[in-house]
Amino acid sequence: MSKTNRVWRLRKRPVGEISDDVLSFAEESVPEPVAGEFLIRLNYLSLDPTNRIWMSDMDQYMPPVELNDPMRGLVCGTVVKSSHPDYSEGTIVSGLGTWADFQIGTPETMSPLGDTGPVPVVDAFSTLALVGPTAYFGLLDIGQPQTGETVVVSAAAGAVGSIVGQIAKIKGCHVVGLAGTDDKCTWIKNDLGFDEAINYRTQNVPEALAAACPRGIDVYFDNVGGDILDACLKLMNLKGRISTCGLISQYNSTEAIGPANYAMILMQRLRVEGFIVLDYAERYPEAITALSQWMAEGKIKVRTQVIDGLDNALESLKMLYTGGNTGKLMIRVEDT
Amino acid sequence: MSKTNRVWRLRKRPVGEISDDVLSFAEESVPEPVAGEFLIRLNYLSLDPTNRIWMSDMDQYMPPVELNDPMRGLVCGTVVKSSHPDYSEGTIVSGLGTWADFQIGTPETMSPLGDTGPVPVVDAFSTLALVGPTAYFGLLDIGQPQTGETVVVSAAAGAVGSIVGQIAKIKGCHVVGLAGTDDKCTWIKNDLGFDEAINYRTQNVPEALAAACPRGIDVYFDNVGGDILDACLKLMNLKGRISTCGLISQYNSTEAIGPANYAMILMQRLRVEGFIVLDYAERYPEAITALSQWMAEGKIKVRTQVIDGLDNALESLKMLYTGGNTGKLMIRVEDT
Repeated sequence: MSKTNRVWRLRKRPVGEISDDVLSFAEESVPEPVAGEFLIRLNYLSLDPTNRIWMSDMDQYMPPVELNDPMRGLVCGTVVKSSHPDYSEGTIVSGLGTWADFQIGTPETMSPLGDTGPVPVVDAFSTLALVGPTAYFGLLDIGQPQTGETVVVSAAAGAVGSIVGQIAKIKGCHVVGLAGTDDKCTWIKNDLGFDEAINYRTQNVPEALAAACPRGIDVYFDNVGGDILDACLKLMNLKGRISTCGLISQYNSTEAIGPANYAMILMQRLRVEGFIVLDYAERYPEAITALSQWMAEGKIKVRTQVIDGLDNALESLKMLYTGGNTGKLMIRVEDT
Repeated sequence: MSKTNRVWRLRKRPVGEISDDVLSFAEESVPEPVAGEFLIRLNYLSLDPTNRIWMSDMDQYMPPVELNDPMRGLVCGTVVKSSHPDYSEGTIVSGLGTWADFQIGTPETMSPLGDTGPVPVVDAFSTLALVGPTAYFGLLDIGQPQTGETVVVSAAAGAVGSIVGQIAKIKGCHVVGLAGTDDKCTWIKNDLGFDEAINYRTQNVPEALAAACPRGIDVYFDNVGGDILDACLKLMNLKGRISTCGLISQYNSTEAIGPANYAMILMQRLRVEGFIVLDYAERYPEAITALSQWMAEGKIKVRTQVIDGLDNALESLKMLYTGGNTGKLMIRVEDT
């Protein structure tokens, strides 16, 4: 195997847009696993909006990446050397790792991906390991959509949003998605079955939302915060639910701005609830079973945008905050 | 009985502080009840923060008062003429009425206060008819405080806040209140048993809160919104709950500002939920039974600030937004 170990390290915390100097990319030696550890070779690196949170020192749900440490990421890799009896060489694992060709794993940070059946490893990793369960629990547990209700989802052509909308359709809801290009809007409406799609860059969002939601909004699945959150708040029905999955419009801001229509929480007696999918770790099998079946039945379609080369990771990451990608964004280092 | 009927009518929607010209006060004729209605003489008029909402045309939980209509209020009165078989003359009723000596009631808007036992009518009306159940359901149903958790309440010397803190103490919580004068702070700490009291006008709220809540905040009962909400958001523990009862700091603002720390909802997986006590109408007996018992046992103390004269209603109302009152604010027109 190659002994070249390229490692991305955090050098600066981003202020505003992510600049090229926040991370460095250089060759280092390959680490050695000690007892209880194993060494993996990276196959796929998942690029997710939350990466920007980890780079910052804002209040967050786990410690931020320390300056000069390797950048944290959700990874899929193959065990190439092991000092742990349960992780033999060749085992494919996924979990929280780093942006590096070679890295140390432990059972606390990585677990075997298991038999993915007819599903290719890259799809299993991209959909079933993180974004699928995020959509599943965030919509169904927090949002609790009922048949006939109106569900709105932002970043609707994104990895999570595209699945949220399809699950909401399965549950018999009127589903409205917001995305940033006409191509994305066409995709979610024609291919994924959303009832309405709004291009938030070219349309007047409050007007378009009001037109697309004639009976108001019962569930808003929030990936973005900011102006779209405000527009949705304005239209929420009595006892509506807002499932707060992400606030991507805020991650690159230098100054946080709260939603001006916050008072709607009181006026309409809303429930706004944040979650992260890690809270549902014990219930993953439920989500994976349901998602696998819906995918097999063609009721849920997923799109993974794969970019080759670990050296492209930082440039690719920026797309998440500019709307440049469609579906799940993934770096391929080496296929399994 | 007197045939003088003085009526407050809404003439302008307030912008910023409430000015004297938003309402007019003039003599009118006494209305006549038709079949199914009854006429009441006003005994007590409750002044509540939500009055400012009804005056405005902001999005709200019931229609705003129409311009030139009588001002809406929570009232307690005595039936003096009836065209409804279930409401005989002399029945004491409470419900949604207007700021007027005489007014028409129906079973949809007013219901008999019932036998208040040893509790004076004014106390039963002030505590058990509205603010007690508001505190009870807002804290226990929405906040779900557990023994040993930290509960923070704003407007803690107010009608609702003072009861919230005392219920939280009964439930074994560490209770911190914010109020606007040293006298109020002394009252909630020494007389009502709060663990800590913070004068938000003279103390640095973020620092004082952090010191008073060494284990963070599990439940924040929000009466005010604004800067205090932001300071609390910053200290919320994982899976914390914010019970949104009021946003009094915002009602007089000309421009709504959302909480800058809104992202904490995501980072700490908080649940923020708005409510109004009318949603709990069917469960009132549960709250009244519990509150009556706690009051009889001396575990809950209430303070009612009674001001004589319907002509003082508008001037008195302003105190709610400037922190001028302590406890429940009430206009007495004529004792029962």
